[in-house]
Amino acid sequence: MKFLRIGQPGRETPVLQHDGTHFDLSPLTADIDGAFLSGEGVAATRTALQQGELKPLDVDGHRVAPPIAQPGKIVCIGLNYRDHAAETGATLPTEPVVFMKDPSTIVGPYDDVLVPRGSTKTDWEVELGVVIGKTARYLESSATASAYIAGFVLSHDVSEREFQLERGGQWDKGKSCETFNPLGPWLSTPDEITDVQNLALTLSVNGVGRQRGTTADMLFAVDHVVWYLSQFMVLRPGDLINTGTPAGVALGLPGTPYLRADDVVELSIDGLGTARQRFVDA
Amino acid sequence: MKFLRIGQPGRETPVLQHDGTHFDLSPLTADIDGAFLSGEGVAATRTALQQGELKPLDVDGHRVAPPIAQPGKIVCIGLNYRDHAAETGATLPTEPVVFMKDPSTIVGPYDDVLVPRGSTKTDWEVELGVVIGKTARYLESSATASAYIAGFVLSHDVSEREFQLERGGQWDKGKSCETFNPLGPWLSTPDEITDVQNLALTLSVNGVGRQRGTTADMLFAVDHVVWYLSQFMVLRPGDLINTGTPAGVALGLPGTPYLRADDVVELSIDGLGTARQRFVDA
Repeated sequence: MKFLRIGQPGRETPVLQHDGTHFDLSPLTADIDGAFLSGEGVAATRTALQQGELKPLDVDGHRVAPPIAQPGKIVCIGLNYRDHAAETGATLPTEPVVFMKDPSTIVGPYDDVLVPRGSTKTDWEVELGVVIGKTARYLESSATASAYIAGFVLSHDVSEREFQLERGGQWDKGKSCETFNPLGPWLSTPDEITDVQNLALTLSVNGVGRQRGTTADMLFAVDHVVWYLSQFMVLRPGDLINTGTPAGVALGLPGTPYLRADDVVELSIDGLGTARQRFVDA
Repeated sequence: MKFLRIGQPGRETPVLQHDGTHFDLSPLTADIDGAFLSGEGVAATRTALQQGELKPLDVDGHRVAPPIAQPGKIVCIGLNYRDHAAETGATLPTEPVVFMKDPSTIVGPYDDVLVPRGSTKTDWEVELGVVIGKTARYLESSATASAYIAGFVLSHDVSEREFQLERGGQWDKGKSCETFNPLGPWLSTPDEITDVQNLALTLSVNGVGRQRGTTADMLFAVDHVVWYLSQFMVLRPGDLINTGTPAGVALGLPGTPYLRADDVVELSIDGLGTARQRFVDA
């Protein structure tokens, strides 16, 4: 199933997208959040759909919101694609590099993104996002990890490289600027995705292709990442994991063509839709 | 005023502590959270107290919860005391070092703290916590920062040094383990604290004094930190900032006496009370 949210910030309506039709999920849940994803919400939605109990909804002209409510945390994996590690000049990590983003940075897939004041190195990163569906604490092995995943989502881990790399050493400062995590358009449940380690990711800036990768090239696969993180922190329903970006970011390109106001970034992942953001000055 | 919360996780009662008496704030607010701190909650509490409308509450025998609801984010300042930077072998930062903790790590001031599985380097850090009361975005100067602060709180930034420093370079992995942010006992509004840059901080382990510092030794003062962070991210009501720890952590002591199960840590800050945590194996 594909879940999304429609409407202005703070007044989003939960929606199911099925065979090209949108259905209003308000009678079933107030939001697509941890409680919905970890409880009976998904099963109840499936039943209601099958029994024809859901009402179609016209979403034309409405804002597409991030498909999940604000997460309890956003955990990110750095340098998780061989080619991206190489372009940044980093040595290949021997275990996942972990950092965090402010959870309040998530915005809708077509919302404007703010270039921070004073920024000269705002950069793009298309990423596969993993949303947690069940509390994960010290998982025994990566073989059990898939049971803890509610679904997958297209995520944009916008990054300010000077703030990230040249202002104190820890990355979070360049990852948590306002609007720096466009998410969506929708959350796909795992059954929608045939092989999560074989999805193409693309990103273009003003129509020029910049990133073209595949999740087959991840150093640490999704199940490994979920297992690994659960050894260091508790993953809770609704939490978001950004699993890293392939090569092609501005930092690694000739001339480092960082983002400026009026640039338009379009990104996509197989089965997870396309997003498009205009950059504007904060 | 001093705000606290009493009761088991998920069922906390908001409480005002005034002149040795506790008052039930349930009729005024469901929780001590961002909405309460940013709205009319604090003023309404003051009025209700003055007009004798609050009912006393017997808190004996009840768990003292963290004094605020789960924050939207926890932002931490690293190496913010000259002597602590020296003991860790770090050079003095020229601007604040910023990292994050999982917001779900907060627990009450007397709750047990879990030594993570596989940990051999669990360490202590007494810190002054700052709770945000008003959305702060690109503040003009540190002179205006105090208006954005809801209050101060005793915070324990528990840290696993191997996870933090030897497992990939980014610190968050060693800062976000379950129960790693005991908080409280109470939140003091700014008017309760005469000079936030002149507070003694102490921490002992099994009765042996380990940290004895003063906020006068901060490299970057509280107002500077709030101003600085607002240039990189939006600080929102209810967010927690841990402002760094003075010297005396296990990492910097002869023999590096890291924490083990059954160790007891007691910590305090002038005007912000005393907390006491037993460490147990996860």
